[in-house]
Amino acid sequence: MPRYALLVEYDGAPFVGWQRQHGGLSVQQVLEEAAAPLNGGVPARMMASGRTDAGVHALGQVVQLDLARDLPPERLREALNFHSRPHPVSVVRAARAPADWFARFSCIKRGYRYRILNRRARPALEAGRVWHVAPPLDAAAMHAAAQGLLGRHDFSAFRAAACQAKDALRTLDRLEVTRRGEEITVETEARSFLHHQVRNLVGTLVEVGFGRQPVSWPRALLEGRDRTAAGQTAPPEGLTFLFARYPERIDWQ
Amino acid sequence: MPRYALLVEYDGAPFVGWQRQHGGLSVQQVLEEAAAPLNGGVPARMMASGRTDAGVHALGQVVQLDLARDLPPERLREALNFHSRPHPVSVVRAARAPADWFARFSCIKRGYRYRILNRRARPALEAGRVWHVAPPLDAAAMHAAAQGLLGRHDFSAFRAAACQAKDALRTLDRLEVTRRGEEITVETEARSFLHHQVRNLVGTLVEVGFGRQPVSWPRALLEGRDRTAAGQTAPPEGLTFLFARYPERIDWQ
Repeated sequence: MPRYALLVEYDGAPFVGWQRQHGGLSVQQVLEEAAAPLNGGVPARMMASGRTDAGVHALGQVVQLDLARDLPPERLREALNFHSRPHPVSVVRAARAPADWFARFSCIKRGYRYRILNRRARPALEAGRVWHVAPPLDAAAMHAAAQGLLGRHDFSAFRAAACQAKDALRTLDRLEVTRRGEEITVETEARSFLHHQVRNLVGTLVEVGFGRQPVSWPRALLEGRDRTAAGQTAPPEGLTFLFARYPERIDWQ
Repeated sequence: MPRYALLVEYDGAPFVGWQRQHGGLSVQQVLEEAAAPLNGGVPARMMASGRTDAGVHALGQVVQLDLARDLPPERLREALNFHSRPHPVSVVRAARAPADWFARFSCIKRGYRYRILNRRARPALEAGRVWHVAPPLDAAAMHAAAQGLLGRHDFSAFRAAACQAKDALRTLDRLEVTRRGEEITVETEARSFLHHQVRNLVGTLVEVGFGRQPVSWPRALLEGRDRTAAGQTAPPEGLTFLFARYPERIDWQ
């Protein structure tokens, strides 16, 4: 069975998240059902590099797919985009992948972006794609606080109660807060993230941005390892899965 | 009656356009009805700097409003944003304006941006905000062709049949085509535009981008003044009204 890699974009709003679950439509279900006509009528099983939550968007999700048929990647891409209509899911690129490549386990770096619209007026054109925060935020203070979290740590303080990872040790390689006019962007990279880690980090940095907590607070929270002490979980609509990186060269078509 | 200026953002998708008309909801109607509670229960009449078509977005539409009551601009802005919910219309700023200021007639420069997503795969996250053009476009050729249209000309070849302007003489100050990855942006500025002018210009430049027409073609069309000879009208969802400029200093709050 030939293995493929897919580079996938989606608007998270109408979905229960990447992963199939009862009670709603997932991105996984849309793509697996779109692949059925290419797989002898049987939905093809897929696995993603990152299991995004309900409402979280993706520009560069990477998905693994084993197909009963050998198809040129361009044709696979076009067929999946045809059969997944009208859902806001698009296969931007496709590639043949080695049999020992895994979208999830082979991934060595993941990147996310979180967008905050920081102004009094609610969003209109960017509604559903940004977190609206009305009081002024000090992005420079948020950035300074973020730098104290880089490196290898136990991130228990920023982990969802439902997180299924065996341990909370993660290495945060980048956590950058920048302002451009009314928009504040948080960009982060790590080999892997805990469940809700990015949204919990953003919710915590925002407390520093408001001036309610000092720049040293997120680092102190990290060391305290107590989730109940940290900031709120930032809402999903501001978050976008940007990229997944692999040691293997993927010949995207 | 105090006059106000409003800086307005909207997602054009659910509207019949800026202007009130039978058979659908307009941005004007949403805002005028949102102003009624501040105007003795009577919808307040508004006029916009540019009457955008159905589906066209705005980040910097400027609107004029005469109100029965004198209100601090901040309060006016907050009240309009409260009463216009849940429509994707947002008053980003408000200001007091002189009685001899008009959003439409005082405007000395208008700016638009047109976004093209140029890739095989259909848009997902940016669906409804870009024109999806699948075959590869040569943005440099489009830009070169655009430069032949700058200056004061009779733009009859790029004007909608329904255009109500007395003449088609306009001065195009900027028409810039740039590519950034898969996205091509056309940015344009003029004192005023004819009905459908920007979308007709984009539809024409795209023919050059495909290589179906030479770089000299848009200039030749301009000189021919024949609308039926030009390219298609590009779809509205790629277009955003960016700004309106005035000689008066507006003290936005």
